[in-house]
Amino acid sequence: MSTFGKAIEINLFGESHGDSIGIIINNLPAGIKLDFANIDHELYKRRPKSNISTPRQEKDEYKIISGYYNDYTTGTPLTIVIENKDTRSKDYSNDFLRPSHADFTSHVKYNGFEDYRGSGHFSGRITTPLVILGAISNQLLKQKGIIIGSHIDSIKDIEDNEFSDYKSFESILKTLNSSDFPVLNENIVKSYKETILRAKENKNSVGGIIETMILGLNPGYGNPFFNSIESTLAHLLFSVPAVKGVEFGKGFSITKLCGSEANDEFYIDNNTIKTRTNNSGGIQGGISNGMPITFKTAIKPTASIGLPQKTVNIDTMEETSLSLLGRHDPAIVHRVIHVINAMASYATLEIICRNEGFSWIK
Amino acid sequence: MSTFGKAIEINLFGESHGDSIGIIINNLPAGIKLDFANIDHELYKRRPKSNISTPRQEKDEYKIISGYYNDYTTGTPLTIVIENKDTRSKDYSNDFLRPSHADFTSHVKYNGFEDYRGSGHFSGRITTPLVILGAISNQLLKQKGIIIGSHIDSIKDIEDNEFSDYKSFESILKTLNSSDFPVLNENIVKSYKETILRAKENKNSVGGIIETMILGLNPGYGNPFFNSIESTLAHLLFSVPAVKGVEFGKGFSITKLCGSEANDEFYIDNNTIKTRTNNSGGIQGGISNGMPITFKTAIKPTASIGLPQKTVNIDTMEETSLSLLGRHDPAIVHRVIHVINAMASYATLEIICRNEGFSWIK
Amino acid sequence: MSTFGKAIEINLFGESHGDSIGIIINNLPAGIKLDFANIDHELYKRRPKSNISTPRQEKDEYKIISGYYNDYTTGTPLTIVIENKDTRSKDYSNDFLRPSHADFTSHVKYNGFEDYRGSGHFSGRITTPLVILGAISNQLLKQKGIIIGSHIDSIKDIEDNEFSDYKSFESILKTLNSSDFPVLNENIVKSYKETILRAKENKNSVGGIIETMILGLNPGYGNPFFNSIESTLAHLLFSVPAVKGVEFGKGFSITKLCGSEANDEFYIDNNTIKTRTNNSGGIQGGISNGMPITFKTAIKPTASIGLPQKTVNIDTMEETSLSLLGRHDPAIVHRVIHVINAMASYATLEIICRNEGFSWIK
Amino acid sequence: MSTFGKAIEINLFGESHGDSIGIIINNLPAGIKLDFANIDHELYKRRPKSNISTPRQEKDEYKIISGYYNDYTTGTPLTIVIENKDTRSKDYSNDFLRPSHADFTSHVKYNGFEDYRGSGHFSGRITTPLVILGAISNQLLKQKGIIIGSHIDSIKDIEDNEFSDYKSFESILKTLNSSDFPVLNENIVKSYKETILRAKENKNSVGGIIETMILGLNPGYGNPFFNSIESTLAHLLFSVPAVKGVEFGKGFSITKLCGSEANDEFYIDNNTIKTRTNNSGGIQGGISNGMPITFKTAIKPTASIGLPQKTVNIDTMEETSLSLLGRHDPAIVHRVIHVINAMASYATLEIICRNEGFSWIK
Repeated sequence: MSTFGKAIEINLFGESHGDSIGIIINNLPAGIKLDFANIDHELYKRRPKSNISTPRQEKDEYKIISGYYNDYTTGTPLTIVIENKDTRSKDYSNDFLRPSHADFTSHVKYNGFEDYRGSGHFSGRITTPLVILGAISNQLLKQKGIIIGSHIDSIKDIEDNEFSDYKSFESILKTLNSSDFPVLNENIVKSYKETILRAKENKNSVGGIIETMILGLNPGYGNPFFNSIESTLAHLLFSVPAVKGVEFGKGFSITKLCGSEANDEFYIDNNTIKTRTNNSGGIQGGISNGMPITFKTAIKPTASIGLPQKTVNIDTMEETSLSLLGRHDPAIVHRVIHVINAMASYATLEIICRNEGFSWIK
Repeated sequence: MSTFGKAIEINLFGESHGDSIGIIINNLPAGIKLDFANIDHELYKRRPKSNISTPRQEKDEYKIISGYYNDYTTGTPLTIVIENKDTRSKDYSNDFLRPSHADFTSHVKYNGFEDYRGSGHFSGRITTPLVILGAISNQLLKQKGIIIGSHIDSIKDIEDNEFSDYKSFESILKTLNSSDFPVLNENIVKSYKETILRAKENKNSVGGIIETMILGLNPGYGNPFFNSIESTLAHLLFSVPAVKGVEFGKGFSITKLCGSEANDEFYIDNNTIKTRTNNSGGIQGGISNGMPITFKTAIKPTASIGLPQKTVNIDTMEETSLSLLGRHDPAIVHRVIHVINAMASYATLEIICRNEGFSWIK
Repeated sequence: MSTFGKAIEINLFGESHGDSIGIIINNLPAGIKLDFANIDHELYKRRPKSNISTPRQEKDEYKIISGYYNDYTTGTPLTIVIENKDTRSKDYSNDFLRPSHADFTSHVKYNGFEDYRGSGHFSGRITTPLVILGAISNQLLKQKGIIIGSHIDSIKDIEDNEFSDYKSFESILKTLNSSDFPVLNENIVKSYKETILRAKENKNSVGGIIETMILGLNPGYGNPFFNSIESTLAHLLFSVPAVKGVEFGKGFSITKLCGSEANDEFYIDNNTIKTRTNNSGGIQGGISNGMPITFKTAIKPTASIGLPQKTVNIDTMEETSLSLLGRHDPAIVHRVIHVINAMASYATLEIICRNEGFSWIK
Repeated sequence: MSTFGKAIEINLFGESHGDSIGIIINNLPAGIKLDFANIDHELYKRRPKSNISTPRQEKDEYKIISGYYNDYTTGTPLTIVIENKDTRSKDYSNDFLRPSHADFTSHVKYNGFEDYRGSGHFSGRITTPLVILGAISNQLLKQKGIIIGSHIDSIKDIEDNEFSDYKSFESILKTLNSSDFPVLNENIVKSYKETILRAKENKNSVGGIIETMILGLNPGYGNPFFNSIESTLAHLLFSVPAVKGVEFGKGFSITKLCGSEANDEFYIDNNTIKTRTNNSGGIQGGISNGMPITFKTAIKPTASIGLPQKTVNIDTMEETSLSLLGRHDPAIVHRVIHVINAMASYATLEIICRNEGFSWIK
């Protein structure tokens, strides 16, 4: 059940402290020269850095073990493997259930046979191969003039500007993509980082919201009902650990408006039909309308905190308390944002290829 | 792309003003005696009634044309068909793009060949067979002691109570399910209906939020990543027309909390591991933890309004304005809520059957 | 499990003596004007006729209940329904297990809840909607210059000529397709029909072999391993009741040759790479090589015979004997051949659309 | 498109002379202790040995890089990797199209970007991970009392005995499974090997037929139409390189019989319904009837031969001739047989798990 995709089928695998993690990407056309600099840049952005992330150091050195020959994809399954290196399994135990982690649920599901070290298959680390998938997807989407980017919309109660304040989306998205801590209002960075550091000092953690834009997708992609753009995107976004909400366009706040305020009226701009507002987030009836696709994703506060928490020892079935000593992220919003971008890129590629096949890819 | 499911595969079909709408439900075990009274009750609840809904009258008379013999399912595809009867196609035209409807996107996707009458395949009417699917799913879930229900959490800026104020969820859910306008706080009904009627008078519309609870799902169901409970539910929820947001547990508001506030601490209750809070909405790592699964769904204001709106005539490619004269719902929250329940029921059944197969079904 | 397809997804339904049988065809592009004359012709060919088939008369009057509007496909699910009319259920009972029918296996699988009348979902009648699917597929394949046809290669021990005796495959296939009893050697028809009639007189039945050619598929379609052309075709061919064997090119008899005899040597014909022989049946590594794709399908003798047979009464669990009195086909090869063509057409369309999407379809 | 499975999803990858080959097996339950001795034994059997196979020596040293912890499966994707070691790429070139290999078709499909070394993804070597999959499947099937085995039914025109000559299938299958050159009639081994060696001396090759039995599958598994046992098995069998035909039970020769001869009459044996003959190969209506499932698979002569062959140089588009100098198998029937067993085992497991889920697995 770690598989997805009808057009570009993927298979994710690995545990945080096992031998390796990785992904197989199926059905990529032959003859694509991968942009490794771009992949490296995306991996760099997700990697923990400075004092606002875990001190665990992973170089994310990936190796392509099939599907790539003489500098081009071969058309057969592309398999990417990352060996785990900087693991300290002794920091972890599965005796004590960490609140709001998957310790309990995986223990029940897998009858105690789960590889619990470093959260095993449930670790955020398993999203690393997804970032590679996203970088490859982006490279192909570029051929369609599609660019995808996100900003940290909020951390705890601090908020960034909105996308809607801006005119030139393309250059904004490029700027966002060049940063490992992307925001629209550069002045907010200090507050964001202070909020994270304060949580860290308090042995606590914080969450936040990510806003994403898919720019350049022509109208007519997607489907009604079970393969709507929203369904496909939300399916993939909710696969990312720590995501608790997804909304498109105005999302939950559209429920506060009247129809006359919420509806996106049409007009003609240079012989193209556009909408003046974009409360729908670029999607109607599950299908793109040519406006930017926008959505927000809620990231819960990191579940690992140093503060003592009440819990249960599942072996002895006794209540107890727990203070986590391992290397933790006081916030993961600024790291997950790059995974969200990756999922958005892959979802967009999948949506296009379901309609058009692969022959448009150079 | 109107198909879904790996265990219970479904195929939805039909257009609002075509011959018929319906659904095929595949892989239901043989020997199930369908509870038609329950199906009828669910259909009744979704059907437009009184002055807060469209005057279009559909009896939703469905016919099972395969897979049911001698009062039991046969194990082969169950096909359910509803003929369309009270249709007035002349109220509609596809010359003028109705804002925030699928007129434009379907026109582009289908090159003008779409059946646009009454929104065609994009009509809320196509969700009727989903309500039947939900009723059948519920009947099976009952065998596992699972009950699912929703309340209208808000209409525009009026808000109902929260689930969390209550102790006895099971009886609450049963009460909610007995109503076609389910709320936790009965006193709110008047305000809700007034809000809807005021919109109607103003030739406008309103939206709202639906909160849903899945009660009784044991811990250990679901999967990490691409078949997480959240992914499966969100996929189906976002398939329902007018849904713009989905959040689990505390959802977007969890981002305002610290980890120490957000985390659900474990305790032991009668030899069972539970969490004191349920901010996670009953899911960790994509897997059920035995607590009630809770989520909210944002429903946008009905796109059809009588007020004049600016739009484009796609044939002449001229800007124009449009006042919709057809029979419209000033709000659909109280109708969609029954579809949301149906999707939650089907999703839960699908999640269980993917793990356990079908042999548990009597 | 009555679903198939990743590109063009289908869902087959119905029982022989139930209300209706039919099919949903998903993902067909909008704007296709169906060639009803061709559909009717294909249905005509499969329909029982004259004294060599069952006297059951079905007009196969189908109705499109969704996905077709103003003489064109709409792009949303195309649902086709055929009502059952000339049914005589009293000819059937499920007390006695008919040898080599699905009576016993369906009874076990469905715990006695199967609709056993006229073989229910296991009836050859359920292939009627597949013939419509095939006719629609053919219409699209024609745009790629692909033509598919079959001849009755053998009935019992009487054999037709081979495809390989001929030069002009296209005209041959057209001739075959114009006939409801297609053979290469017209002189064989008499022997074939005599063999069938002799079986009928003896209250017995006969089977035979069908040879099929897919002409005009360019090289490069298909895939290695699990989506090979052979896998896709065989999957669908073995879905057809009564099929017991499938072989490509020289098939089983290639095992009698040396590699030097079996290999298809390449040469250049008018700047195109071709093979002098076609023992591989147009496929290497699961991928088309541009030569005609050829395969044979073995059809067992009709299981329903009038002769007395030993069997078991599954209710009393006693051994007994059984003489079938219903209306039976002494042979179905000449009827199944049109279903085999249909499956070949749909499979070819599916293989193409998986690679290229749908945008090539006019 | 190198993926398969709805219950146990697999993803095969790798090229013959690339870095590695391998497989991901998804959805295996947690808590299975793999029987490595059995895996090794199966790999040993497939491996080239003695003078009747290629001298290429591969140790098939596999490594589990995810999904296995503390000697048990974890329930998350099980990833198995085999590094390629004894590769001599200079023996190969893609200038000259080897007749009846995938050189031409892969060249067209992948636009010349295929990894052609040692046949790349089309190499028989890629079936090695399938043998591991088969061994794991067998281990689980054993819990259901299911045993699967095959014998070399023929090599060229030399034929082994039939299964039907024997009474005690279980011990026969065990004996077959203990051998890397399994036959029913031990006296035939000498003729078989002589036939192979003669082909080798003549720089030629031979093919043959494999007969397989699945013993112990209870009645009621499988489905009508698109998930019939035949469809599922044939899909997987035709995925194996060099397979040109698949037939169940009497297969093609059943077409020579009358219905009265072909039908399998029922009787009662010890309160169980059985059939006296098994011409149907244990399947009716796509569903198991409790009798042994039997099928035959045709394996073409190895395409690689030392004799000169006419071909085309695809770069210069000139006709030429080619004598293959690399290390080749004069026959692969005795090696492929172990892959056929593996596919049969996986298919059976998949068929069971689609019906029953995974909870029966210990």
